[in-house]
Amino acid sequence: MLIQLVRIEVKPGHRDTFLEAFTINCEGTRKEPGNLRFDLLCDPEDENKFSVYEIFRDEAALDEHRKTPHYRTCVEMIDPITVGGRRKDFFLPVLVETARD
Amino acid sequence: MLIQLVRIEVKPGHRDTFLEAFTINCEGTRKEPGNLRFDLLCDPEDENKFSVYEIFRDEAALDEHRKTPHYRTCVEMIDPITVGGRRKDFFLPVLVETARD
Repeated sequence: MLIQLVRIEVKPGHRDTFLEAFTINCEGTRKEPGNLRFDLLCDPEDENKFSVYEIFRDEAALDEHRKTPHYRTCVEMIDPITVGGRRKDFFLPVLVETARD
Repeated sequence: MLIQLVRIEVKPGHRDTFLEAFTINCEGTRKEPGNLRFDLLCDPEDENKFSVYEIFRDEAALDEHRKTPHYRTCVEMIDPITVGGRRKDFFLPVLVETARD
């Protein structure tokens, strides 16, 4: 199991485009057999700071994810409207549920 | 929906006690009607640094959680073996699944 919290900052004025892109990504990703969790969250103090709590079965599942049209469309849409790169915190599972056991 | 990532550092040599306490807490919490998610995670770089990804229906559900025996037992067990207080990052839900819709 691969668990990461991805942090993304959106440039002011582009929030709607970001949400449009991530809705496409969320809907597609949750149908992937290798994805177990995909939550898009926002910082209560800053509406342009987002985090994505992601769980994939393994590294191979994440690699497959990155080849999907919904991921690629999302990245193409958000790259020009984000501040700096996407920062990632990785975690090991200790006691983890999955939405799709 | 109330979402938080709680960070806890355990004193060296007490990891087993921590895991025992958190297994009690996890099993009990996931049965609470107000809890939607409760994942215990560990830092890949430090086996004594933990994070808990928690989703509760609302503030009232979290208040109920804090009154439960499994929560109180856990806190009693881990308070003496943790370094500093429990740090919390709060999030707003944007596109969030729940394990128990």
